Parts: sequence; structure tokens; C-alpha cells
Amino acid sequence: MNLPEKARKLDEADVLRAKRADFVLDDTVYLDGNSLGALPAAVPGRMADVVAREWGRLRIRSWTESGWWTSPERIGDRIAPLVGAAPGQIVVGDSTSVNVFKALVGAARMAHAERDEIVVDATTFPTDGYIAESAARMTGRRVVAVDPSELRTAFGPRTAAALVNHVDYRSGRLHDLPGLTAAAHAAGALVVWDLCHSAGALPVGLDAHGVDLAVGCTYKYLNGGPGSPAFLYVREDLQPRFDSPLPGWNSHRDPFGMSPRYEAADGAPRGRVGTPDILSMLALEAALEVWDEVPIEAVRDKSLALTDFFLECVTAYLPAGRVESITPVPHAERGSQVALRCADAGEVMDALIARGVVGDYRRPDVLRFGFTPLYVSFADAERAARVLAEVISTR
Amino acid sequence: MNLPEKARKLDEADVLRAKRADFVLDDTVYLDGNSLGALPAAVPGRMADVVAREWGRLRIRSWTESGWWTSPERIGDRIAPLVGAAPGQIVVGDSTSVNVFKALVGAARMAHAERDEIVVDATTFPTDGYIAESAARMTGRRVVAVDPSELRTAFGPRTAAALVNHVDYRSGRLHDLPGLTAAAHAAGALVVWDLCHSAGALPVGLDAHGVDLAVGCTYKYLNGGPGSPAFLYVREDLQPRFDSPLPGWNSHRDPFGMSPRYEAADGAPRGRVGTPDILSMLALEAALEVWDEVPIEAVRDKSLALTDFFLECVTAYLPAGRVESITPVPHAERGSQVALRCADAGEVMDALIARGVVGDYRRPDVLRFGFTPLYVSFADAERAARVLAEVISTR
Repeated sequence: MNLPEKARKLDEADVLRAKRADFVLDDTVYLDGNSLGALPAAVPGRMADVVAREWGRLRIRSWTESGWWTSPERIGDRIAPLVGAAPGQIVVGDSTSVNVFKALVGAARMAHAERDEIVVDATTFPTDGYIAESAARMTGRRVVAVDPSELRTAFGPRTAAALVNHVDYRSGRLHDLPGLTAAAHAAGALVVWDLCHSAGALPVGLDAHGVDLAVGCTYKYLNGGPGSPAFLYVREDLQPRFDSPLPGWNSHRDPFGMSPRYEAADGAPRGRVGTPDILSMLALEAALEVWDEVPIEAVRDKSLALTDFFLECVTAYLPAGRVESITPVPHAERGSQVALRCADAGEVMDALIARGVVGDYRRPDVLRFGFTPLYVSFADAERAARVLAEVISTR
Repeated sequence: MNLPEKARKLDEADVLRAKRADFVLDDTVYLDGNSLGALPAAVPGRMADVVAREWGRLRIRSWTESGWWTSPERIGDRIAPLVGAAPGQIVVGDSTSVNVFKALVGAARMAHAERDEIVVDATTFPTDGYIAESAARMTGRRVVAVDPSELRTAFGPRTAAALVNHVDYRSGRLHDLPGLTAAAHAAGALVVWDLCHSAGALPVGLDAHGVDLAVGCTYKYLNGGPGSPAFLYVREDLQPRFDSPLPGWNSHRDPFGMSPRYEAADGAPRGRVGTPDILSMLALEAALEVWDEVPIEAVRDKSLALTDFFLECVTAYLPAGRVESITPVPHAERGSQVALRCADAGEVMDALIARGVVGDYRRPDVLRFGFTPLYVSFADAERAARVLAEVISTR
């Protein structure tokens, strides 16, 4: 069976196949959903209603009548099952960077003062490292940057908290969330997980694995739209000890009491800060409708099948040695993307995009291809590899 | 001349009268624009295009091709003339609370360590006080809360920075920005001004008065939509010393270099943090189109005329002693709202809203009426006072 035919069979057998119709797509092969998810079909109509009716007609009344005020918790609870969290632990709002700051300062404040180190995975997305430096500086700690392979042994009696990416944004490597969380706990430390590249792509199991705090973005595999608000998870039993560095009026126990003295709300709303960004918030809520009745396990199965198949096609179509996958082969170590090192990667990606295959380029030499199982087909994967082979062979 | 007739004459003479057509309005008298501005007519079409074409069709390409990446600075420069700032000093993004944190920590870090006090106006909007406490705690300072009337004498050799509201959210009192800024500078301190209730309502003159840093929201008199992103002003000559507590990748000198080491960008972008919230950002940009060719001085003239006329109508229509204005009479001390103390204020406001006059209620006893000169007419002011008199007299 040739590869296009195999793709056809795989697509026919795909239990998520019908979900593709829930997105606005065209004849592009869109493999950049790990940067900006495609537009869910429910969003334009919902946005038009939010703007014209909720803002335009109801105006201020919408804060209560349209449920704007409680949307950060409500949408947090909608995300919760996708990352294995019971309700009441996730709140949506602010950017990922701001939430990393809240989570890391909050975690450091839960630790004894003699624990003076914040451990960060050294290959992290840059903002996590920068914010960790700021959190360390502002809580009297220092950052220790450690290669992810050495994280397990880096946790010790001086570790206040660790900040680890679940999936490396560059290589697509999936880190061992259960094992590293247990190792940190064994050392008496807390862990903040960055789920930007795993939320909506694979089962996370926050509650099951006893994760302490987590943050994640919603514009990648959750398709919330450009710069849609991020989320913050604080495990229920830690919430009373969560001491936010950004205690805005939205996290007050009685926000409309307008008291000059701050008293933190109970529960997930303690992670709120200022007035939430309602247009983006409600676009995200509409985007999350595509998850109705989608088990995250089915998404994971298809994701692995897609990346396996893409790698199979790359191997079959490309001359040996022209690209090198830096994405781990074992499923237990792979997220939902494939990263290929390649000479002239920037120009190669430009040529791919010109031919309707959209991935992205990360300096100096990486082609990134993200596979969003809800709307990427096996035929897409085959075509992407085929076009990549054409581009490479004509250079 | 009776008051309805006077309203008609004033509306006929109003140079901003035509601007009303730039908003989506109905037969409600909407006097809550100091909480959530009305919908500008340009927004729904622009939002539909942002969602369907920029996100839906161009997807990731819009970060460059649709100007998403540079929107925080571009929109900052659009706001700049409204608050008297030259270009290159304002950036848009995050909530007001988050920007208060950036500004206050940034200001404190510019001060000598022996300046150990952050002075805050004691009547401030709660979030400013809460965030000031956090900024003080995290920079080794303490907060000194002072009644605005005593601010001038509160600045001294221990003052690192002050945080002052330009207009009091409750009473509508306008504080003396030029005088207080000069007094702080004379004491060697920096001032952060909160412009939430003045941006778009009156001339601020940031550059002219040598203001150091400022923050403001965009969903009140700037009509940016619910929870639209706030702005941060850092005066040009202070920008090199601005050391943000939230150094996200968007404020890096080379954001796509993905360097593990943070190097702050020059200029206004140094105030950026994470990925900006594009839907809300571009709704705001469309909302700002209503300001084309509107001098802020004309807005101020009409604002004062509106609040004067409303108070005149209240005095004429209401039985003496039933309400008490806590908004200053002198123009130099008045923002763009009128606050009336009133028995059973919560119920009175409910009754007003039921009769199509929308203001808001602030505990325990304040009726707030915001006057947005771009879309509120003198007839609106007269009707609001008349309906208020009806409600009060039937109680």
C-alpha cells in the first residue's frame, strides 16, 4: 500500500474525522496549530453576538446578565477535564507570562525561606526563564537552570519550587510529569508545570499526579484565538496558602465592597487580578465547544498516529540525511509536534508556506510541524512530507 | 427658558453632536460610560474581519501581515495624543492592575533604597491600593496611605514613589496632576498617575507636566470594550531605567532570538509582557477611530457643560435635601461624572435603570452618573435628572 493510500485508510478509520467540520479550513495544510490554532466555526457567530448584543445593547448589564463576571472560573472549569482537573481549580485570564509569575511567586511563598532555589528547565520557552528570574529576585531566591534530563537529581533541600515545561516548544519532547512531580515532592519542593504545548494535545492528569500549580495557554491546541487568555491551576488543598503577587480587586473576597483592605477570595478566583478581557475570553469559550464529547485519550491516540505517520512519510520521501528529527521516537517522550533540523530551515519553511504547507521555523535550523488531531488529517501529513521532499530536492 | 428647551439649544450648539452617530445607541440614557463605554459603530465590522479573515484565513501569518505583533505600540501611539504624550511612550496590553504593578515596581526601582515609602492616595480604587501593597512588599518598601488633600505634604525624603488617581472613581474629584507631580519631584520622588477616569474625558498633559509613569484603562471613556487592555506610559527619558517586574518575551530586544538571557527592549515595548490579546486589542483600535479629528479640549468643554447642566436640572427638579452631590463644583476639581449621595441609593438606581436611565451604584449610598461627551447629549442629562426626580418623589 502506498502512502497516499495508507493516509486515506487512516482517515477513513479516524474516530475524530467529523471534528474537522467544526473548524474553518481551506486547502492549506495547517501544521502551525501549536502556535495559533485554527478558527473554530462557532466563534464568528458568537463574537458577533457578544459585540452587538452583549456589549452593544446590554452594555454594563452584561457583567451579570451575560455572565461576564464569572467567566474566568466558568471557562476554567470547561478546560479542567481536558487537563485532568476537578472543577474549582482553574481560572482563565492574563497572559501565560503573567500566570507563570503568579504561580512561581505563589509556589515560592509556600516554601520555607531556607529553600532558596527555583529550579528551571534550561531548555524552557524563554519567557518562563525570564519570569522565573524575576520571581526569584522578588522572593529572595536564585534560579538554577538545569537540563531536563538532570532535573530529577537537581531537586534537593534547597529547592523551593521548580518550573518545568510539559512539552519542549522546540523539540516536541514530552517530559515525565508524574515522575518529576513525585521527585520534586520527595525533595519537599513544589512544581509549576507549563502546559502550553500539552493542554488539548494529550492527557495531563493534573489531579491524578498531584501536580501543585500549572499554567497553560489557550491559543495553541485549545484554539482560543490570537493571544487568548491563559489559565492558572492551583491544586485545591494549596489554594488557602496561595498568596498572589498580583492581588487585584477581581480576586477580593468581596470585589464590590471596594474595601481598602485586601482579603483574598477562596478557591480558583484567588488567581484573578484585574477586569478580565471579555471579548477574548468569550471567543475562547466558544472555541472550547469543539471539545464536547471528545475524550482527550482519543486525541492523544490520533496525535501519535499522525506524528508516526508523518515521520514514516518523511523517511520514505526525503533523501537520507537531509533532515534530522529532534523529536523523540518513543511515544512516552513525544508531544504533538515534529521538529526537523534542516539546512537553510528558514528558506525551506518559506518555500513550504508558498506551497500551502504551513509550519514554522525556529532559529537557527528547526522546522516545526504541529499536529492538531481535531482538524489535521493523515492526508495532510502525507502531503506535508511530500511537499517538503519536493522543496528539499529542488534546492 | 425651561430646561428641556435649554437642553435643545445646548444640543444644537454642540460641536461634538455629530459624533453620536459613531456609536450604537438606543433610547436609553446611558450614563455608565465611566464603567463601560458604549459600542462604537466601527467595531462590529472590524471584529468580524479580524476573526474571519485575519485569524480564520491568514492565521499565523497575521502576526506580521496584519500587524498583530506591533499592535501594542501602534495603539499606544493612537492613545498618546489624547493624554498629551509624544509617540513612543505608551504601550497597550494587560489589565490596569497588572500595569499598576509594572509601573509602581518600576518606579520604586528607580529610587534610592533609603527611600522606603510608597505613598498612595487613601481614597484610591481598591485594586491600586492592593497592588501597591504587593509592589511595596516585593521591593522592600511600605505603603503610606494619605488623604488626597494631604498628598502634597506627604512627599518627603523617604518617598520612593507615589500612586495617585487623576480622578476619584467614587466622587469624581479631579486631582491636581501638575501641582502634585511638581511637589513629588521637589521631594525627589516619582509619581505614577492612574488615568482610568480621565483618559478620553479631559486633557491630561502627561509630557507637558513631566509625569513619570502612568497607567489607564481603555474601556471607560475610550470605549474599547469590556476588559479591553490597559495602557502604560513611561516617560521617554526614564525608559532606559525602567526595570519591569514582568520581563516576558514580548519585551525582549530580540523576541524571536529565543535567547535564555533576558535583554530588555528599548522604548515603550519594554512594558510588554506576554502575547497580546489580539481580539480585544483590535476592537480597541477600531474604537479609537471615533477620536479622529476630535480635540480633547472640545471634549472637556462639553463634559463640564454637561455636568453643570445635569446639576442644574437636579437642583431644579428634586426636592431640596433628597440628594447631595459629592462631586466638586469648581471645574478645576471635577472629572466627567457626577456622584450623588442618596438614601436607598441601590434601589433608586434599580428604578432608574428600569426607566431607561443607566448609571451605577457604589456602596453604601452613591449614585454615579458618567458623562461621555462623544455620545451623551444635554437632552440625556435633562431626562436623567427628570426621571431621578420622579423616582425619588414616588418613594
